[in-house]
Order: sequence, then C-alpha cells, then structure tokens
Amino acid sequence: MSQYKTYFIDLDGTIYQGKIKYPSGKRFIDRLKKAQIPYLFVTNNSTKSAIEVAKNLTENHDIATTPDQIYTSAMATADYLKATVAPHATVYVLGEDGLQEAIVNAGFEVVNRSDVDVVVVGLDRNITYDKLTVATLAIQSGAQFIATNSDTNLPTERGMTPGAGAIIAAVKTATQIEPLVIAKPELPIMTGALQRMAVQKSDVVMVGDNYQTDILAGINSNIDTLLVYSGVSTHDQINRVLKKPTHEVETLDDWII
Amino acid sequence: MSQYKTYFIDLDGTIYQGKIKYPSGKRFIDRLKKAQIPYLFVTNNSTKSAIEVAKNLTENHDIATTPDQIYTSAMATADYLKATVAPHATVYVLGEDGLQEAIVNAGFEVVNRSDVDVVVVGLDRNITYDKLTVATLAIQSGAQFIATNSDTNLPTERGMTPGAGAIIAAVKTATQIEPLVIAKPELPIMTGALQRMAVQKSDVVMVGDNYQTDILAGINSNIDTLLVYSGVSTHDQINRVLKKPTHEVETLDDWII
Repeated sequence: MSQYKTYFIDLDGTIYQGKIKYPSGKRFIDRLKKAQIPYLFVTNNSTKSAIEVAKNLTENHDIATTPDQIYTSAMATADYLKATVAPHATVYVLGEDGLQEAIVNAGFEVVNRSDVDVVVVGLDRNITYDKLTVATLAIQSGAQFIATNSDTNLPTERGMTPGAGAIIAAVKTATQIEPLVIAKPELPIMTGALQRMAVQKSDVVMVGDNYQTDILAGINSNIDTLLVYSGVSTHDQINRVLKKPTHEVETLDDWII
Repeated sequence: MSQYKTYFIDLDGTIYQGKIKYPSGKRFIDRLKKAQIPYLFVTNNSTKSAIEVAKNLTENHDIATTPDQIYTSAMATADYLKATVAPHATVYVLGEDGLQEAIVNAGFEVVNRSDVDVVVVGLDRNITYDKLTVATLAIQSGAQFIATNSDTNLPTERGMTPGAGAIIAAVKTATQIEPLVIAKPELPIMTGALQRMAVQKSDVVMVGDNYQTDILAGINSNIDTLLVYSGVSTHDQINRVLKKPTHEVETLDDWII
C-alpha cells in the first residue's frame, strides 16, 4: 500500500521547466495514474486559468490533465475570499485575466475604483501607475490587502523578470501595510487544496523543487514534503536549513510511490 | 551678522503645500532676498526640471525664482554620475522627463536596453512592466542601481499616491539589490548642493518640514537644521527622536535670519 493517499505537486521546476520537458516528471504522473492515486497540481501562478494550465500540460508536456487537477493561487485566492469575506463584497483586482476570472467566478463584484472592501494584487504585466494608485488609495482607506503570491521573479526567455512580489512590494511601500499572502509557502493555498481534495493532512505529501515555497508550505501546514533536486533548491542550501524536507530525491524517478 | 551664510530650503510643506500658498514661506524668501543671503531650493522631486520648478514658484506662489536656485534629485543624480561614472557610460532611466533630461544634459548616453552601466530609477507615472523588466535585467547583469529618492508617497489631489520609493521597491524585490539613493535624507544631494553653492557645511542651514528627509539629510551630513512645523512632522514625533533638529519653529515667520 502506498505511503500517501494524495499528492500535491508543484509544476515549474518539478514536472517541467518552462518549455523544457522533464521525462521523469511525465513518468511520475504516469505512475500515479496507474496506481490510481489522486493528485492536484498546486501552483503559485495567478495569471493563467486552470483550463490554460491543464492545456499546457496536456499539449506541450504530454501529460493529459483536466482543469480540476489544477489549483492556482488565483483559485486559492477566490476560495479564501469565499470562506472569509461577505458574499457581496466589492473587490479591486490588480492582476491578469486568470485572477480577474477566478474572483468573478467566485461571485464577487470586481470593480475599477478605490472604495472597495478588498484589494487583490498579483502579477500584472499590464501594470500602470493608475492601477497602482487605485490599489494604494483603496488600502489606505481600509480595504483588506490580499496578495496572490510573493514570488520575486518569473522565469522567462528574457531572464528572471519581475514577479508578483515586485508589484506587491510597490503597493506595500506606498501603503505601509503588509498583505495577507495566499500562495506557497503561506497557509491559505494549502488549506484550500486540502478542502478541494477532501483529504486529511496526514494522507498528503507536497512535492516540489523549491524549499522556500513548496517545502516550507508543507512544513508550515504540517504536511509531509518531498524535495526533488530538479529546479531551484540545491544540496548546499538544504544542508544549511534547520527544518529538512521529509524526503529528498535527485529526480522523481527515484521516488517509490 | 546672520548666523548662516547660505540656506538650503525644502519646498512642499515648507514654502507651500501643493497648490496652497504659505504667506510665511513667501515672507521668509523675501527676507532672505532683502538680506542678500544666498539660498537653494533642495527638492526630492525628480520628475520636473529646474525651469518648471522655478516657474511654479514664480507664477503660482508669487516667489520670483530662477532655475539656478533649484536643485532637484534629478540634478543631484546627474551630478553624482558626473562625479563617479565614466563619461561615456550608458544609462537606462526608469523615470520621467525631468530625470531623463538631467542625465542627457550631463552628457550621458541614455538608452532603452538592459546592457548598460547604470540604471537610474525615479518616479515614473508611465511605468510599464517592460520598463520594470529592462531595469531588473540590467541590474541583474551588473549595472549599478541608483535611485533618485525613496519617498514612499506623492501628495496629490487624489490622495497619497505611490512615490518613487514604491517603484524602487519593485526593482529591489526583483533584483534583491539595494540601490544607492541620491536624495534627502541621503548624502549625495547634500554634497551636490554644497558644491553648487561653493559653501562650507558650517555656513549652511537646511530648512524643512519633514524630519525623515530634510532634517535627517542635515544631520547625516553635519549641517545645521531648522524644522518648521508647517507640514509633515509633528511635535509628538520630534519629542520621540534622539537626534533633534538644531532649531525648531512653528512657522517661518518665527525665524530670525
């Protein structure tokens, strides 16, 4: 019998790297499918919808995936709002289509003004000074400040371009207010993922390549972790941290399900 | 004989407040003129040229001013580059016209690409993700990171909108590099002002309403300071700081030149 009944799995650096396929990532998912073990891809990305992320896995990485197997920080943000904010709350969104859609789909009124109940900030590659200003004035007036994720950079073909964390830093500086952050390594995305899969923490393992996001998300929420050395974190870095991952493998081929 | 031979004077909150005239500010400048004491307006603003700032004082606040009486953080940035960077250095400017002009006028080649020697970041109300990306990639590749000023907010009719410090925080987060900051309370703008006026520190007093910028600029550079309670800083705040201003007045009418 398998050690874990459900897998939470990071994407970039774990199952693929940008446009580069990881054969070990595909084989890992194939083995989970064969063993009929449920899994959920848990990603800090807030700009793409579940449909787009599933399509990318299916078409570009030969890993057949349905949208219900995807949990983005945008979806986690929408779930968090549903769980904590009044149903008719107004929301100003500084973010891209994936985020706007997730919040509208959750039933909230997304408006373009600063007298709102909640401001949600994520990566927005169409950032303007006016958008920064509306978010800033709204938070100064008492709107709750929620950040999808605090990733400082986005790996792209141009290099490590600014991530959601850069946009959020601008709003933090202009408001002197700390946001509530939804995505890994923070708790809300893990709470949301557990509820989506209707599983207990002790039955789950969080798989990822990044200690600062994936592994700390597991540690912070008392979920076992599996670090794979195929992306961001290195042996040197892990040797220096006090709280180690539950498991470590060089590639996902080394992991026995 | 006057106590100080030269005055460095802040503008917003000291001589006027936005579009609001301060009669005591005008009377203070009139008295300096009558006593034939030289003065320089030293402002953290990087978006306007000296000509524009002088025009605003002359036309909107009835204080006849020439451009050579203005020293902006953009001008101080240009002076700093002239003093420290090779003459043919390339510069990427993330900032508005006043900053672009000052650096071009100082003889540097301002280019729109990331293989540059220096990146200068100031307030840019036409900020785009592409501009943030070019600045980020340039600094990651080793370009020197210079910030005109770190003011978190800009007082406007809409409210306290994001200042240069917000834009700079985004670039700091995406690069994990601290900028060299030119404007008050940092040293370079004071060094530049002293050189422009060809005066010694002991002959100068820095006049302003903001302890965190104006007064600390004086304290950090061993220049006497005069705090006027007509703007940002309050008695409560000054009671709590360890390093007091040299002098304090309720309005500039209370200051004997």
